[in-house]
Amino acid sequence: MIIKPTLFIDEKKCRENINNMFSKVKTNKLEFRPHFKTHQSLEIGSWFKEVGVTKITVSSLSMAEYFSTQWNDITIAFPTNILEIETINTLAKKITLNLSIENEESILFLNDNLKYKVNIFLKIDVGYHHTGIDPKNSDLINTILDNIDTDPFLNFIGFLGHAGHTYQCRTHKAIKEEHAKSLDIMAKLKDKYATRYPNLIISLGDTPSCSVADNFSGVDEIRPGNFVFYDLTQNLIGSNSISQIAVAVACPIVAIHKERSEIVVYGGGVHFSKDRLEDKEGLVFGRVVKKEKNAWGDLIPDTYVKSLSQEHGIISVPKNDMYKYKIGDYLMILPVHSGS
Amino acid sequence: MIIKPTLFIDEKKCRENINNMFSKVKTNKLEFRPHFKTHQSLEIGSWFKEVGVTKITVSSLSMAEYFSTQWNDITIAFPTNILEIETINTLAKKITLNLSIENEESILFLNDNLKYKVNIFLKIDVGYHHTGIDPKNSDLINTILDNIDTDPFLNFIGFLGHAGHTYQCRTHKAIKEEHAKSLDIMAKLKDKYATRYPNLIISLGDTPSCSVADNFSGVDEIRPGNFVFYDLTQNLIGSNSISQIAVAVACPIVAIHKERSEIVVYGGGVHFSKDRLEDKEGLVFGRVVKKEKNAWGDLIPDTYVKSLSQEHGIISVPKNDMYKYKIGDYLMILPVHSGS
Repeated sequence: MIIKPTLFIDEKKCRENINNMFSKVKTNKLEFRPHFKTHQSLEIGSWFKEVGVTKITVSSLSMAEYFSTQWNDITIAFPTNILEIETINTLAKKITLNLSIENEESILFLNDNLKYKVNIFLKIDVGYHHTGIDPKNSDLINTILDNIDTDPFLNFIGFLGHAGHTYQCRTHKAIKEEHAKSLDIMAKLKDKYATRYPNLIISLGDTPSCSVADNFSGVDEIRPGNFVFYDLTQNLIGSNSISQIAVAVACPIVAIHKERSEIVVYGGGVHFSKDRLEDKEGLVFGRVVKKEKNAWGDLIPDTYVKSLSQEHGIISVPKNDMYKYKIGDYLMILPVHSGS
Repeated sequence: MIIKPTLFIDEKKCRENINNMFSKVKTNKLEFRPHFKTHQSLEIGSWFKEVGVTKITVSSLSMAEYFSTQWNDITIAFPTNILEIETINTLAKKITLNLSIENEESILFLNDNLKYKVNIFLKIDVGYHHTGIDPKNSDLINTILDNIDTDPFLNFIGFLGHAGHTYQCRTHKAIKEEHAKSLDIMAKLKDKYATRYPNLIISLGDTPSCSVADNFSGVDEIRPGNFVFYDLTQNLIGSNSISQIAVAVACPIVAIHKERSEIVVYGGGVHFSKDRLEDKEGLVFGRVVKKEKNAWGDLIPDTYVKSLSQEHGIISVPKNDMYKYKIGDYLMILPVHSGS
């Protein structure tokens, strides 16, 4: 019985999302290194194991520690935090640890402080402009590679990019254009360094590109994460249908305001995250779906979360639908973002 | 030593904020029922105890359960979630529990299901339009009061309002105007019901009004919460100076991008919440302050968090200051919102 805001995960949809992405990986002869920051769960991780996934991505050393009990090949797709050198050494002793590097200082620090072997990806800025080396900055790339090659504990394995700017796209065409730019950047790097490193890996990652694109030429592995649940943002982008969204939050109805056509639910920023998306109604923080027994169905038209405070959400409801809701019942709500 | 994103609380500033608000409460002959949703900590709660606070506010029954180990007079300033009736009865047996009611259905449910006495506040909409009864809706107010008065387990104690819309104000004048409207609404209710309920309490709560206003005529108790830490939003509103902000997050520097005058820190949405404010620079998710030993000082001009992803933040830094920062160091960052 639901008495508080409760997160529901639809295992069937989740497994289908995993299977679909894995099929795409096979069709395109890629390696699959899913990002586990989205679910952060050993149990959901085990569903990936069942289909044959053996390598994963995370975004912090803390998450790598958590998953290292069951996974022995982990990439941290986040610039290396050298302050956590103790954790790096602990993990490097135990598993295949792949770090992302994007500056000389971190490599120099690893040169001096590593006690076990790690693999190194060079993080390349493919256009998101959050992190990563400018792909044209050959001097920096070469300096870092020279440092790696002279250190017996460091092993360069490839270039890693994350086209996070595809989250701003709203059409398949726009996503594919951004993805093509990433492919082009990575192809040039591969050409340039293939002789020196014949086995170098090109690793790309965002869920929009991995969901929408068909062309992965030159790519060796993909690292999408969000696709395991999908969400309303990914739906707006065009990555998934509403029926593929595998998470929802059940929220008790605590107040009904007929005069404003609004319902107040117990369920707010601490239960949803405060992500929002701009859609036809203005800002949207979630959408209400039809309830089914321990599951949910289609969207209820024009019924959405219009604002969130810490513990409660305000739901906008069409005037003619207001009679359907009562205090003590609950709503099933799809999240705007399922990432964190 | 800081190796990961780390929340710092400045106990001295915190205690000063508590003392300042408590002085205001005494000057205005009010009761003090601070909202504990901001800190959600028994330890910080004990600092309130030391100055003589005996009653608190929370925003969920879960929080009430947590604090009921050390506090025995708790108001839940959130529409009663009747689905949690078991918790309501457990708490009502143990402590003085004050519930907020804003509809007839909840009172009818309590009539049928309560096993112990509770006090009831009627939640009044003073203009925020999130929750609460329209103060002009005398029919609803009277119906609920009649229901309360005929139930031996229910005891009406007053009207409770929350002017959450003051968070949208940007001047003291605007806050005081909204506060005056709340006072007026509550004064009319007090006049109307004072004969029937000579001891009824008028309870108001938002941090902006409680920080800025001088006139509390007709008010019996205040319930601010955020003031214990304050934050950049409250600073922009005019509730506090930067030096009163009592929380900051230390974030390791993991990348430096001179060409964009940007620094990347380990510290993102999961460490800060994704609240943002619109300030002169556009969207701001936090501001960097000068580091001091286990503390912090003034703002570093024009140095702020311009975006956040799950685990990392992008800091905009003036071009001429970039030389001051290095990989492996950390930044002290003030949050936009300290509420959750």
